[in-house]
Amino acid sequence: MPRYLLEISYDGTAYAGWQVQPHSISIQGLIEKALAKFLKGATRLIGAGRTDAGVHALGQKAHFTCSEKVSLHTLVRALNAMLPFDIRILSACEVEETFHAQLSATRKEYHYHISLTPTVSPFLRLYRHHVPWPLCRSLLEKGAARFIGTHDFGSFANLGSKVVSTVRTLYRLEILEQEGGLRLEVEGNGFLYKMVRNITGTLLEVGAKKRSLESLDHLFTHPHRSFGGAAAPAKGLFLVKVTY
Amino acid sequence: MPRYLLEISYDGTAYAGWQVQPHSISIQGLIEKALAKFLKGATRLIGAGRTDAGVHALGQKAHFTCSEKVSLHTLVRALNAMLPFDIRILSACEVEETFHAQLSATRKEYHYHISLTPTVSPFLRLYRHHVPWPLCRSLLEKGAARFIGTHDFGSFANLGSKVVSTVRTLYRLEILEQEGGLRLEVEGNGFLYKMVRNITGTLLEVGAKKRSLESLDHLFTHPHRSFGGAAAPAKGLFLVKVTY
Repeated sequence: MPRYLLEISYDGTAYAGWQVQPHSISIQGLIEKALAKFLKGATRLIGAGRTDAGVHALGQKAHFTCSEKVSLHTLVRALNAMLPFDIRILSACEVEETFHAQLSATRKEYHYHISLTPTVSPFLRLYRHHVPWPLCRSLLEKGAARFIGTHDFGSFANLGSKVVSTVRTLYRLEILEQEGGLRLEVEGNGFLYKMVRNITGTLLEVGAKKRSLESLDHLFTHPHRSFGGAAAPAKGLFLVKVTY
Repeated sequence: MPRYLLEISYDGTAYAGWQVQPHSISIQGLIEKALAKFLKGATRLIGAGRTDAGVHALGQKAHFTCSEKVSLHTLVRALNAMLPFDIRILSACEVEETFHAQLSATRKEYHYHISLTPTVSPFLRLYRHHVPWPLCRSLLEKGAARFIGTHDFGSFANLGSKVVSTVRTLYRLEILEQEGGLRLEVEGNGFLYKMVRNITGTLLEVGAKKRSLESLDHLFTHPHRSFGGAAAPAKGLFLVKVTY
């Protein structure tokens, strides 16, 4: 049976998140509905990552299987014609029958955007976490460095994720300056439920001098969610890239 | 009586435009409401330009008069605390009693954003006019050049504006490339009702070879709205700067 991989971008503001849920509108649900119309039969769409309500994506990936080969060009056009404008299919390609959008992923990249100006531009209000209080850039950078490598991220994993192990590897965690604020860029082999938002929230506490740099080590040796910082708001987070 | 000038940015998507209108929510109306609370009394807010429903602003200007001096810092903070996040007061300054946000303006700059990609990013859907058909860049530029200077812009003025003369001067009209498309930048001493959208729509007809370059001259010698092209959609338009 042919299997296809979609590259998807969405503004998560209006949705209950990626995953299909009863009584709410999800991105997965809307694309599955459009796919069912196009394929004239229901199929499951498996995403690389389950982004939360309000989280955005520039390069989410998701696969589905169907009974017959389809034209890639027609598939993309037909889905975009049926989907709302805050969800766009950027491209499609055929993949092996053994390929899995989530399990085959070797690397994911997320960006978290922070606005430091007294007022946030109206055009960024849904895409930035506003931090109008002082942040120590050097503490943020020193804190970020401690997260890189293989750790037990249990202090940064919300309940709701059924996982065997909370050990993950971060390849990169950088704090970059951008117009009006900062951008946190993180790459890893996998992310637990709300992990990027929890890491960001914890780092912001370090940057605001509400949590010591040294206390971060304790979070890895005593991995429990109650020790980690509060999650940073969903609207600042973007799933940027999934690598296979 | 002290008079103040506000610099304002807004996402026009949710509003019936700048101007107060019965039975609909306007940007002017919301700021006047916030001002009335702050000043403990009603005052009229006069904008530099009356942007239409769906048109955005990066640097709209507007003045008001009140009975007593106010702290500029407190004024900006208080208004922003009362206004929705898609309207932001960027700054405030005191001006002469004879200053008038509209009548004292010597120059205004508008930008019109066009997306030429097959799909528009979800994050730009409210801020770009999508033109997925081919446009001849050279015709657009040649067409733009004919608008520069002093002309009777009656072919580009919608009814609804009570003006004595439809003669205006454009200092600059440039077509610039930007990621995913084009940006039209226009500066002039004043603009008639829907003038930028009507000029853009007409130029797009020229670029799509639906209207000849030569026919543009006719629009200036026979200035009547029925001769001009259809208005380009509001969402691509930004009032960028007002100069005094």
